[in-house]
Amino acid sequence: MTGTAAPPRHPRLITLEGGEGAGKSTALASLRELLVQRGHEVVLTREPGGTVAAERIRALLLGTRDTLGGEAGIEPLAAEAELLLMFAARVQHVQHVIRPALRRGAFVVSDRFTDSSYAYQGDGRGLDPQWIADLERRAVGLRPGLTLLLDLDVREGRARTSGRDLWPDRIESEQDDFFERVRLGFRRRAQAEPQRFRLVDAAQSPAAVGEAVAAAVAAHLATLTDADLA
Amino acid sequence: MTGTAAPPRHPRLITLEGGEGAGKSTALASLRELLVQRGHEVVLTREPGGTVAAERIRALLLGTRDTLGGEAGIEPLAAEAELLLMFAARVQHVQHVIRPALRRGAFVVSDRFTDSSYAYQGDGRGLDPQWIADLERRAVGLRPGLTLLLDLDVREGRARTSGRDLWPDRIESEQDDFFERVRLGFRRRAQAEPQRFRLVDAAQSPAAVGEAVAAAVAAHLATLTDADLA
Ligand SMILES: Nc1ncnc2c1ncn2[C@@H]1O[C@H](COP(=O)(O)OP(=O)(O)O)[C@@H](O)[C@H]1O
Ligand SMILES: Nc1ncnc2c1ncn2[C@@H]1O[C@H](COP(=O)(O)OP(=O)(O)O)[C@@H](O)[C@H]1O
Ligand SMILES: [Mg+2]
Ligand SMILES: [Mg+2]
Repeated sequence: MTGTAAPPRHPRLITLEGGEGAGKSTALASLRELLVQRGHEVVLTREPGGTVAAERIRALLLGTRDTLGGEAGIEPLAAEAELLLMFAARVQHVQHVIRPALRRGAFVVSDRFTDSSYAYQGDGRGLDPQWIADLERRAVGLRPGLTLLLDLDVREGRARTSGRDLWPDRIESEQDDFFERVRLGFRRRAQAEPQRFRLVDAAQSPAAVGEAVAAAVAAHLATLTDADLA
Repeated sequence: MTGTAAPPRHPRLITLEGGEGAGKSTALASLRELLVQRGHEVVLTREPGGTVAAERIRALLLGTRDTLGGEAGIEPLAAEAELLLMFAARVQHVQHVIRPALRRGAFVVSDRFTDSSYAYQGDGRGLDPQWIADLERRAVGLRPGLTLLLDLDVREGRARTSGRDLWPDRIESEQDDFFERVRLGFRRRAQAEPQRFRLVDAAQSPAAVGEAVAAAVAAHLATLTDADLA
């Protein structure tokens, strides 16, 4: 293998990361509003998913409500298969949605991205982070310019999604120790890459979280050059 | 990355490889007959596929007859996504079919296996063989004890499958130069690993191919120890 240098960051790719119920999908709205007010085209998207093929892979990965987190008759997914399916979906998402949008000058805001694979399949499932880094380099080829990590106590996140818990998907069905590893993994990544991550205390009110997110994005925008925006 | 040493060979895993129309599926019957006559349990399987999840991934990879090689509205699959989906399906196949069968002492005969990824996604699509070797090591972890390569002129294979050509799947829809690269890739691999591969001239009659296949398997069986058969 050749090295595992991280791929380059793209200034107009912004991602939201964090555990279940941290408020990622809620924060998307504040983010779009701020970027649109500044006159930017914004593409909102999510992972796993974001294209027709990737949403098909998502259904395989997560199961559906009707099947309580797994298709009837389907065998359990191996951790390695989960990782490879996540990256197969991500390749499609990057090549068919993210890169075309960035090429025409838009901002792309994604609800989860590669950091979730490091946290869930790496720290959560115990797969080798070097493997994930290799997949990131070979199959993704870019990192966000800004990643907002919504950090929240695991039980608090569970309480917020108690409605969803009636029909948990395959990953939501994991135990608390899995989600504790995921949370720690996200925090370690944020510490290791402070120039990209902004840690947001997601225990605050939705309004306060929205303000923290908006402030982080405004600060990021202030660092961008004309070339970054072209 | 740690090294890329090939994974160990399992004596009771036998694979059939070769291009479209080479006669792999036809040869499966002779193979089973010979092994059953010798009193062995035989599991016949195929790739991509072999489990419920893997067959779902196969449908994504190949499309279906009804959709002429691609689901209506689905975007084109990137080569990298094709590779990752192939290996996701292979993980499931290995963990849920191949390893359990080998553990209970059965022979497993697979119509295509990892060599097809080297030939189709590597030589055909141009993806880095080092990446494929890394996926083989991390996600598959075993090689066949014997691989029968049915080698056939590309146009001859096309002529044999002219019925299928009315409804080619996504990979069957490729041009001849793609299949020429695949054929050469298979032949190079067979030369590089002569202790595992047996090259069979697939231009012969079905009876002659069946005999060549049976002879190669009989020779392989003669090398096995009692421990290999337990
Ligand atoms: N800051 C917050 N405080 C309290 N509840 C919140 C907050 N942000 C979101 N919620 C609620 O918590 C639940 C999960 O939020 P959501 O944005 O869907 O989280 P995620 O997308 O990270 O899983 C939703 O019901 C949402 O209304
Ligand atoms: N040795 C052979 N000579 C002529 N035709 C053959 C031979 N072996 C198989 N066929 C025919 O060629 C077609 C393709 O064979 P098949 O076993 O399905 O190939 P594969 O599985 O390698 O694509 C089938 O119609 C089969 O009956
Ligand atoms: Mg959400
Ligand atoms: Mg066949």
